[in-house]
Amino acid sequence: MTTDTAITRDAAERLDAEDPLRALRQRFVCDEPDTIYLDGNSLGRLPAATPGFLDQVVREGWGTGLVRSWETWIDWSRRLGDRLAAHTLGARPGEVVLSDSTSVNLYKLAAAALDARPGRRTVLADSDDFPTNRYLLQGLAAQRGLKLVTLRSDPDLGLDQDELARTLGGATGGDIALVVLSLVSYRSGALLDMAAVNRAAEAAGALVLWDLSHAGGVIPLRLTADGADLAVGSTYKYLNCGPGAPAFLYVRRDLQTRLRQPVWGWYGQRDQFAMGERYEPVDGLDRFLVGTPPLLSLAAAEPALDVLEQAPVTLLREKSLRLGELAARLAEAWLTPYGFRPASPPDPVRRGSHLALAHPDAERVCRALRARGVICDFRPPDRLRIGMAPLYTRFTDVWDGLDRLRRLMGSRGHEQLSTARPRVT
Amino acid sequence: MTTDTAITRDAAERLDAEDPLRALRQRFVCDEPDTIYLDGNSLGRLPAATPGFLDQVVREGWGTGLVRSWETWIDWSRRLGDRLAAHTLGARPGEVVLSDSTSVNLYKLAAAALDARPGRRTVLADSDDFPTNRYLLQGLAAQRGLKLVTLRSDPDLGLDQDELARTLGGATGGDIALVVLSLVSYRSGALLDMAAVNRAAEAAGALVLWDLSHAGGVIPLRLTADGADLAVGSTYKYLNCGPGAPAFLYVRRDLQTRLRQPVWGWYGQRDQFAMGERYEPVDGLDRFLVGTPPLLSLAAAEPALDVLEQAPVTLLREKSLRLGELAARLAEAWLTPYGFRPASPPDPVRRGSHLALAHPDAERVCRALRARGVICDFRPPDRLRIGMAPLYTRFTDVWDGLDRLRRLMGSRGHEQLSTARPRVT
Repeated sequence: MTTDTAITRDAAERLDAEDPLRALRQRFVCDEPDTIYLDGNSLGRLPAATPGFLDQVVREGWGTGLVRSWETWIDWSRRLGDRLAAHTLGARPGEVVLSDSTSVNLYKLAAAALDARPGRRTVLADSDDFPTNRYLLQGLAAQRGLKLVTLRSDPDLGLDQDELARTLGGATGGDIALVVLSLVSYRSGALLDMAAVNRAAEAAGALVLWDLSHAGGVIPLRLTADGADLAVGSTYKYLNCGPGAPAFLYVRRDLQTRLRQPVWGWYGQRDQFAMGERYEPVDGLDRFLVGTPPLLSLAAAEPALDVLEQAPVTLLREKSLRLGELAARLAEAWLTPYGFRPASPPDPVRRGSHLALAHPDAERVCRALRARGVICDFRPPDRLRIGMAPLYTRFTDVWDGLDRLRRLMGSRGHEQLSTARPRVT
Repeated sequence: MTTDTAITRDAAERLDAEDPLRALRQRFVCDEPDTIYLDGNSLGRLPAATPGFLDQVVREGWGTGLVRSWETWIDWSRRLGDRLAAHTLGARPGEVVLSDSTSVNLYKLAAAALDARPGRRTVLADSDDFPTNRYLLQGLAAQRGLKLVTLRSDPDLGLDQDELARTLGGATGGDIALVVLSLVSYRSGALLDMAAVNRAAEAAGALVLWDLSHAGGVIPLRLTADGADLAVGSTYKYLNCGPGAPAFLYVRRDLQTRLRQPVWGWYGQRDQFAMGERYEPVDGLDRFLVGTPPLLSLAAAEPALDVLEQAPVTLLREKSLRLGELAARLAEAWLTPYGFRPASPPDPVRRGSHLALAHPDAERVCRALRARGVICDFRPPDRLRIGMAPLYTRFTDVWDGLDRLRRLMGSRGHEQLSTARPRVT
């Protein structure tokens, strides 16, 4: 694709026509032709099969089957976790479950990892990581009297991996119990090299806990091959499992029995329904489960995986890179004159599947754009995130969305909005 | 009701005809006329309006509204919590949220309470409490080096409240940081006197954390008036919010800012979407929230509350007592000859809404009974639980269910089943 052809809408249409994944868009509900959705990185679209499947779970499973349905449901956290492990995460059976929220899973695994390294007093994190991750680590560090060291990452380019490697290999490396990082930055989209980080941490004797929320379903992952210790991630973004769907939790097989998480619930108990007196965690991954999973939300993972499994992640990545390249070129040509500045790594292979654009008035621009049918999102202080979900985002969506954005800026339409920030953005 | 009339099916039919709540059964899906459901204490029935409501949330909220729907959804944990507070719990607005699982909520509140009583080293619990509660406290005690004192409760009659009061008022009382109790025992159904326990604990300077899973929706609760500190409870039993629905969490208003729970997630953060650097919990109840709630499972609370609010809990309790009395009389007349023994407090006002029957072969009996269309459940080691949900259980259901049970025993039908215990019971 050259700059010239990328800039015309015809060129975008040709890219759609040549897209090997184009048929998959029909597997999603896209019932507002005038809406351009560039926010699948925040909440993925509804798979077309999901309403019917959920209605069946509700009417037949709950309504008719009643409590008997738990004979089937009891396995779903594991079964759906195994499917995700195989297709998306590059992990082995018995290494992934769907449970709780991403935050609760991160808490459980971080606490378990810290308990497994009692002699070490330092947690290493990213100053620009997603808020909940930073807060959770602040809480754990405060509760255990540990030192939380946050590496300053560039808000556009992400963490400096050389600095990370130096810290791990340096004088304090031996005191680091745990490193917590997002593989793809929620704000800039900056992508880290997982295998390299894992190697450096292993050499330092530290465990690594990855947040894969913005990576799952768009970045080819090989957790086993890359030596990943621990990971969590959201399932409601590129995995399309629905609002607040139970998150995934990964623990490498040989680590499972060596770790013990702090929330000792009956779903982690050996022979759960024997209801024995003392807590004895299961040998395998189930020890990281706690209570009864929210079954209706969990069930939505089934039809979502049915669609996801139609596309190898390598193909999703390839399309995502091309979508990102188109967005970056259009932004440069059309939006720089209006004061936008790219706020993601310039090299597409260093990015996940969203592109950040900085603009002093980004919050109002985002709202004004939504009023014009283009949904992307705002992240403080001044970033617009353009999310491209390769399963259903078309090249023409990117073209049309950024075209509407440049026209908005040309008409200064956003300046009519109040500057009061709404609660939810 | 006299023993004579209670024993005939005609008498049970008359009780149904006179039941002021009888019309509410039509608000639930009861589509298998031959199935007798006596397990609403484990998973409540599906409200008839729920499938339609959920389909709308899925198609319109998620499918069409996409990420914009969070502008509405962001309040649902609180809004639905407030409805439950007002109708069911006797609590004030801003004192109840729906979030996470019962187990995770119990962990958060227990940890918060322990941190608020740093000088005290003892946790008081019930040896016969629901497993997850016992395990969670074992975990917290182990992690913090606290002493977990479990009072031996009678497996049929529940905790001896005089002994509890003596312990709280005795020499060790001043070391007790927290008392964790189920208001209604999951196994025997034994009901405690909440106000009396709260008073004794307050006098000792200890906090009380109630598990109301088997009480919510069947026992009139007055958390504010009875001076309750903290509570959690399941919403999928008598509240009919669906399998694994987010649990409720209550913290008395004046305690909220004095407590800080250990899982510092972004849903507890002041000005959540500003995504500030340091965790600063909200002043109110939201500080007990963690991550994104499983919205589809949460949404099912809406139609469930619509039905629940049709019946004051005092009326539900009245019917529940009469259902329990009928079950107890029939069991005595019909089942004692087959080796059953009542395993609940004999006084109906000391029971919740289920009745336990002990039988050496209870597990196989339970399975054989299910095969004959009567669904109740088994709890180790030898208890059959007969659950009566006053919103939809009929007097004839109790009569027919126990009639089928006596006929099963008469034919020794259960003896044909294997004694191998299935995984889910």
